[in-house]
Amino acid sequence: MKIKRIVEKDLPISSPGANAVVDFAGLTTSVLAIESDLVRNGRPIVGYGFGSIGRWSVGGLLRERFLPRLTAAPAETLLDEQGLIDPFACWHIAMANEKPGGHGERAVALGTLDMALWDLRAKAEGLPLWQLLAERYRHGEADESVAVYAAGGYYRGDDTVKSLADEIRGYMDLGYTAAKIKIGAAPLATDIKRVEAAIDVLGSADALAVDANGRFDLDTALAYGRALSQYDLRWYEEPGDPLDFRLQAVLAETLSLPLATGENLFSSADARNLLRYAGMRPDRDVLQFDCGLSYGLPDYLKTLDLLTTHGWSARAVHPHGGHQMSLNLAAGLGLGGNESYPGVFQPLGGFADGIRVESGRVRLPDAPGVGLELKSELWRFLREML
Amino acid sequence: MKIKRIVEKDLPISSPGANAVVDFAGLTTSVLAIESDLVRNGRPIVGYGFGSIGRWSVGGLLRERFLPRLTAAPAETLLDEQGLIDPFACWHIAMANEKPGGHGERAVALGTLDMALWDLRAKAEGLPLWQLLAERYRHGEADESVAVYAAGGYYRGDDTVKSLADEIRGYMDLGYTAAKIKIGAAPLATDIKRVEAAIDVLGSADALAVDANGRFDLDTALAYGRALSQYDLRWYEEPGDPLDFRLQAVLAETLSLPLATGENLFSSADARNLLRYAGMRPDRDVLQFDCGLSYGLPDYLKTLDLLTTHGWSARAVHPHGGHQMSLNLAAGLGLGGNESYPGVFQPLGGFADGIRVESGRVRLPDAPGVGLELKSELWRFLREML
Repeated sequence: MKIKRIVEKDLPISSPGANAVVDFAGLTTSVLAIESDLVRNGRPIVGYGFGSIGRWSVGGLLRERFLPRLTAAPAETLLDEQGLIDPFACWHIAMANEKPGGHGERAVALGTLDMALWDLRAKAEGLPLWQLLAERYRHGEADESVAVYAAGGYYRGDDTVKSLADEIRGYMDLGYTAAKIKIGAAPLATDIKRVEAAIDVLGSADALAVDANGRFDLDTALAYGRALSQYDLRWYEEPGDPLDFRLQAVLAETLSLPLATGENLFSSADARNLLRYAGMRPDRDVLQFDCGLSYGLPDYLKTLDLLTTHGWSARAVHPHGGHQMSLNLAAGLGLGGNESYPGVFQPLGGFADGIRVESGRVRLPDAPGVGLELKSELWRFLREML
Repeated sequence: MKIKRIVEKDLPISSPGANAVVDFAGLTTSVLAIESDLVRNGRPIVGYGFGSIGRWSVGGLLRERFLPRLTAAPAETLLDEQGLIDPFACWHIAMANEKPGGHGERAVALGTLDMALWDLRAKAEGLPLWQLLAERYRHGEADESVAVYAAGGYYRGDDTVKSLADEIRGYMDLGYTAAKIKIGAAPLATDIKRVEAAIDVLGSADALAVDANGRFDLDTALAYGRALSQYDLRWYEEPGDPLDFRLQAVLAETLSLPLATGENLFSSADARNLLRYAGMRPDRDVLQFDCGLSYGLPDYLKTLDLLTTHGWSARAVHPHGGHQMSLNLAAGLGLGGNESYPGVFQPLGGFADGIRVESGRVRLPDAPGVGLELKSELWRFLREML
């Protein structure tokens, strides 16, 4: 097996509106297609991958820095003993001569590449990725379905409480039983009204998570935390700067409310610091590392090992990003669940076309690879790449 | 004053060989030219900036993500009350809608942009940047000269001890009195021979720093640290992963040898974690944050404030990168010194053509701006940009 060519393009993504920090208008992501010399049903096997949400324009990094190392490497160095593309070998070759530290856009470029490599590998074996991962890392035991929650509740205009309730009702009509809404871009009193409206629709505070997107200083984070503690919410996400581990530790010491963070930590080195310094509680807190933003599976597996060492279950992990790669990881590696963006960040958000949310869970398709071909709006773009 | 156009290009950089982690062959950096409508001596005033060493291919980030926000902003929002380009206002506009955390290549793109903005601003005021900074932040008190050391001692072949001694003799002939060499890519016994050869040429252990480039695990870092403790070295740099604050803290607790790190921490948020968790000692240790890798001056000033809060002097800061922007910061803000790369990383490494190293110190030119026009090899490239 060998790589015949690699094509990189920018894919525009639909904007969901704004959260407390970011307006997503004009967002894109990088998409890769890796064509191999293996042929199945008369067509070459191709691996596809994309970068996760929020750190775009990494195409230059891929084209100028990471892909040339792969294409310059002798073909046999990219294979394992089965003669198939080895995503780990490719990862290490792509990362040769990179300096340590400073984990940002580079981690997204590698996440993009890694998804395409695993898609290619799983297709070469004729397996869905979740099954391949379960066989490699969980003695074949895959989860039949994955818990998902609808991430939405962006700020979209004046009538936020009414439109928010309508939006969450829409998610429930789709089969979701849990949702997450944004907080922090309105005054606390307004946000409390939004929270109460959302709980009212969902029927239970435990079905609602809230997300401040890293906006608050310690005083505000504590004020929100105390006000939110009157409800038994599912979690209180990214109250402060994602690297302010001390703020996080003070909140964990002060509040019994579950806390969630991790989507803006892009490496196992950063995750380790979170585990060491942020006082997070393995019995209740939630970790949201996104492989598509953080170097892909090779570094994600290191993070999962760190979790074990620090007394955490992989079930505490609910990846950010709402994409099919994380869904495969959730089912194959036994994570706690997966974020889901119904209707936003299209065509990346959401899962394969035929997949329905039932009682807040989704099943995974049996098609080989990550399953991107089964999402028709995304496939229309991907199939034009080669 | 307003911005008429911004041009971005890639600039190839000469390779110095290899350190313990990285072979720099094929390195480039991004260069920006910002043309204003102000005219002096019949020519438009232009600000130039480049990214610092090691995290290249950020041109796409600039062209697709950061520069469009600047060019879309109303012209008056980029100015301060004097009607001149305000680098802080421009920085905040360029960073609008960016998510917190994950400080990597984005920080280099902003460092590039920020250098060009300060070059433009200083030229608009007709001041060298070091003087402008001293007037704004140090009541006009600038350092007349800056301590520099020759960073070299890369691994370049078999005869490393002999060629290393020759290399350091060459630095002393240029006027340097201190040097830094790489360790960690050879066995400890070989590296000790390299260290002794370098001390022998320099005449004093206190004139020699050693740099492991983040390569060691804790055991190796301790073994090297104990072996190096027999000499009174200037410092022991980046023994472990730049984000492994606990390793750094164990070394600081175990060794009396001064430690140095920081070039691979690309934000004030990361610098704060270093100050909180790495046990670094304000009475002897050295911090090497590079504005050209870490968002430029707006975030660098935050880091300097954090240092004051944590009991450090700005004299503990010896920026990485050996470029003229850091040299201006060193003289204008009263840092401890600046790295220097004689003969490598050209045309970025080194300072203005007429500047000689005398007794290990350099003076700064009086030309307005950062002074890039005074380095002829760099200026040949820059003047072709517009």
